[in-house]
Amino acid sequence: MKKVHIKTNYRNEIIDITQPIQDYIKKQKIKSGVIVVYSPHTTAGISVNENADPDVKKDIIQFLNKTIPEDFGFQHTEGNSDSHIKGSLINFSQTFIINDFSLMLGTWQSIYFMEFDGPRNREFWLKTIS
Amino acid sequence: MKKVHIKTNYRNEIIDITQPIQDYIKKQKIKSGVIVVYSPHTTAGISVNENADPDVKKDIIQFLNKTIPEDFGFQHTEGNSDSHIKGSLINFSQTFIINDFSLMLGTWQSIYFMEFDGPRNREFWLKTIS
Amino acid sequence: MKKVHIKTNYRNEIIDITQPIQDYIKKQKIKSGVIVVYSPHTTAGISVNENADPDVKKDIIQFLNKTIPEDFGFQHTEGNSDSHIKGSLINFSQTFIINDFSLMLGTWQSIYFMEFDGPRNREFWLKTIS
Repeated sequence: MKKVHIKTNYRNEIIDITQPIQDYIKKQKIKSGVIVVYSPHTTAGISVNENADPDVKKDIIQFLNKTIPEDFGFQHTEGNSDSHIKGSLINFSQTFIINDFSLMLGTWQSIYFMEFDGPRNREFWLKTIS
Repeated sequence: MKKVHIKTNYRNEIIDITQPIQDYIKKQKIKSGVIVVYSPHTTAGISVNENADPDVKKDIIQFLNKTIPEDFGFQHTEGNSDSHIKGSLINFSQTFIINDFSLMLGTWQSIYFMEFDGPRNREFWLKTIS
Repeated sequence: MKKVHIKTNYRNEIIDITQPIQDYIKKQKIKSGVIVVYSPHTTAGISVNENADPDVKKDIIQFLNKTIPEDFGFQHTEGNSDSHIKGSLINFSQTFIINDFSLMLGTWQSIYFMEFDGPRNREFWLKTIS
């Protein structure tokens, strides 16, 4: 298992982590298998989405903030219940296919670290199975 | 890895893909393992739900369309930000258990391809690990 | 594959299932791999979230109930379309990393069985791959 450290800069932020995942798969020299990308946090998840137009990332954050507002009337006194809910809906782990030594993604897909309670020092974990 | 091609017919559509997945597992003759079902798209995901009453599929689509409307005020100029968000919330991949040469599903479960920006030619990818 | 039986007590309930999953991994004596935690139901899922403040669980349930109300105007006559939708959004399975004979979770993470149409007798399935 590999732990990758990243730093987030905003409360809500979508960060492309495709490159370090591809680098790890290349180093592992796995011909065929799967890779689990895991967020060990409760207010930051892992997702996939379009890598072409940056407005897509803005729209996802805008939608989540409007639908799951900080001032929804939550009881958790840390004031980040919205962040916990966003994490559970987006998911804390994703599994991808490795084929012919490569991470298999669709043409427009990138893998994203989804920060919902930054800025913070964060990490994600990688585990390959072949 | 196997790529399966499908054609969708509507902008939002839920298509049962359980049978081709079961067929692939049978051909692979895997006694015990897991299978990853992966959508290489950014506006179409993979989910699981009830296979008995077709109204459940209608209700899921109706809820998603009302909660994530096309005219939410998005910035992405292709006009399908709602489709991207639906995909991220539903998820682009799912992992299932293979036991005794069979795909393990609950009594009422089917696996669904979730189209959110059709009609289009689509595909989903299958990868088994044992 | 192992089937674990549980009983839920409320229509919407979040139950910590981390301990039985850790116990299973210890018994299996797997040094390195992944584990799939699977809900074979269509109205109960698997998620991860904070294990410290019980208010987080209350806030998640409150948010889901307000955003996906029973009386949304659904067509499915069993009256539990909200439960099906909650399940698809939360997800019916999650994959976790096993490293050095241990289930790898973040400091604040627990694994939760998410009941959305209880009380019922339920089960979840565990499958390790190394």
